[in-house]
Amino acid sequence: MHTPRHPLSYALFAVSLVLASAHVAAAADDPLSSWNDGAAKRAVVDFVQRVTTPGGADFVPEPERIATFDNDGTLWAEQPMYFQLAFAFDRVKGLAPQHPEWKKQEPFKSFLAGDLKGALAGGAKALVQLVMVSHAGVTTAEFEQTVKDWIATARHPRFHRPYTECMYQPMLELLAYLRTNGFKTYIVSGGDVDFMRAWTEQVYGIPPEQVVGSTIKTKFEMRDGKPVLMRLPEVDFIDDKVGKPVGIHKFIGRRPLLAFGNSDGDHQMLKWTAAGRGLRFMGLVYHTDAEREWAYDRTSHVGQLDKALDEATARGWTVVNMQHDWKTIFPPPAGR
Amino acid sequence: MHTPRHPLSYALFAVSLVLASAHVAAAADDPLSSWNDGAAKRAVVDFVQRVTTPGGADFVPEPERIATFDNDGTLWAEQPMYFQLAFAFDRVKGLAPQHPEWKKQEPFKSFLAGDLKGALAGGAKALVQLVMVSHAGVTTAEFEQTVKDWIATARHPRFHRPYTECMYQPMLELLAYLRTNGFKTYIVSGGDVDFMRAWTEQVYGIPPEQVVGSTIKTKFEMRDGKPVLMRLPEVDFIDDKVGKPVGIHKFIGRRPLLAFGNSDGDHQMLKWTAAGRGLRFMGLVYHTDAEREWAYDRTSHVGQLDKALDEATARGWTVVNMQHDWKTIFPPPAGR
Repeated sequence: MHTPRHPLSYALFAVSLVLASAHVAAAADDPLSSWNDGAAKRAVVDFVQRVTTPGGADFVPEPERIATFDNDGTLWAEQPMYFQLAFAFDRVKGLAPQHPEWKKQEPFKSFLAGDLKGALAGGAKALVQLVMVSHAGVTTAEFEQTVKDWIATARHPRFHRPYTECMYQPMLELLAYLRTNGFKTYIVSGGDVDFMRAWTEQVYGIPPEQVVGSTIKTKFEMRDGKPVLMRLPEVDFIDDKVGKPVGIHKFIGRRPLLAFGNSDGDHQMLKWTAAGRGLRFMGLVYHTDAEREWAYDRTSHVGQLDKALDEATARGWTVVNMQHDWKTIFPPPAGR
Repeated sequence: MHTPRHPLSYALFAVSLVLASAHVAAAADDPLSSWNDGAAKRAVVDFVQRVTTPGGADFVPEPERIATFDNDGTLWAEQPMYFQLAFAFDRVKGLAPQHPEWKKQEPFKSFLAGDLKGALAGGAKALVQLVMVSHAGVTTAEFEQTVKDWIATARHPRFHRPYTECMYQPMLELLAYLRTNGFKTYIVSGGDVDFMRAWTEQVYGIPPEQVVGSTIKTKFEMRDGKPVLMRLPEVDFIDDKVGKPVGIHKFIGRRPLLAFGNSDGDHQMLKWTAAGRGLRFMGLVYHTDAEREWAYDRTSHVGQLDKALDEATARGWTVVNMQHDWKTIFPPPAGR
């Protein structure tokens, strides 16, 4: 905008400034400005207003306003593969020089030769082997640093931006909106809890103690006179499907008032939330946008959404249609 | 105090009133008024001032102010037996009519005949059996109600007051003082997490999500079309000794800035806390008051304090001498 010279232009300029700031103010006043006006946005706002209105029939005291969010496919993308798996694969490649024996040992041999299909021919066991060597055998502090280093440098293969910029802008707004309204926002994800905690506070504003996830066992040891926690190659807890209500009960000990997922892995969490007394909110992010993100549902290997979609439809849970409900998908790139 | 009749008496009366209210105000101004002035109280106040003074060398941002407290023997008493064990025993007695087979089956047979020593002759296995039948086989909601009913009616055998009035008044003040100063207060206890969560919010002001404890496995099931979590008779995690740093990392994901315990069961938690960068506070409640509570340490079966006491002495951790440091032990009885 250039500064006008004519007196009338000045008046128009002043008016345009007022209008422009009114526009900005309107956008700033809308905490969910990346959401199109529609049923999904209305359902969220209506729910929050009802449970936070003192004296209202649906009022819920602040300590009970627990909101749980799945991570992969709900807060950030999960295609073409779970981002944690991309981390695991990069890590195996990075560790390979220290493990000459992998050249003769499956699934590492195929994997390092670039044959992912061959590597995964061993099924779940092969995958667990790849994940365990990349996630265990180090202290918790070392693992945290490894994740931080990776997440700072790795780029998403399609969007060519850091994975931490592949989260959904409308969901970031929803997290902030809920916190402004006295909710405690939690992640409840099948991902490794320590993989997530290395960056969730910075990226989502969700502190480590509000991240629930899958865990591997750790062991307390004294090393050179200093206590460390060693990460063991042994699964402790899988926070997925029927594990999600178990994880919520174990880590939080309180039933969510609001829960958001995107796949059948979240179905039991949504059922558990819905079964609570009084008003509850159950939401699904439905990936319908092949152009701006991806479109997948009932037959997808990653983030299959089938039974949960049927129950959502039958019970009137909120289904967020990514293509129609979201003005933007990702946040603007950070200044790089 | 009677109302004086003489004019001079009135003046003195007025002066005494002013002095009395000044005294009350001073007590109210001291958030740790049940603590005697001494090294322990000074150490706590000095630490809190240093980590909360903006711009100071030891300043710690609020999200990192995590304080963890052991429960049995640190926040409430643990003699003559852990209160959760008293619950278990009462529960077994209550369930006995539904289990006629127990009359012929150890350890129940001896236990129900009043022979605790005989019942526990089976060692740890017998104890686990007694605990499991009293803690498992019900839904999480049913268990919570059972604990609430018990804690509302059971009385401590020596003090003849509810167990929830056998917590330490000075520690209640410490919890509140820390929270006022931006700390998040956690329980990290060997006790069953769901046993504690049934009453910690009301008694300590500590919400369920800030209680870390031992867990038994739970299983998600649909029962009459409603989702429930069944408590299984299978240990999931023991939050004691080397388990405490593991539990802290798993549930909180952040190292405590301050930790308080009373026994060797807390030793590793204190070591883990001490190994963090910068200023940290490690505290022990030392049971030295046989008259007002109990005196026990190195050879006690309950709450043995031996190695942790040696390390506390060697490293200058704060040892709270109950007899000398605390003006009062328990809070005044609630209006009954």
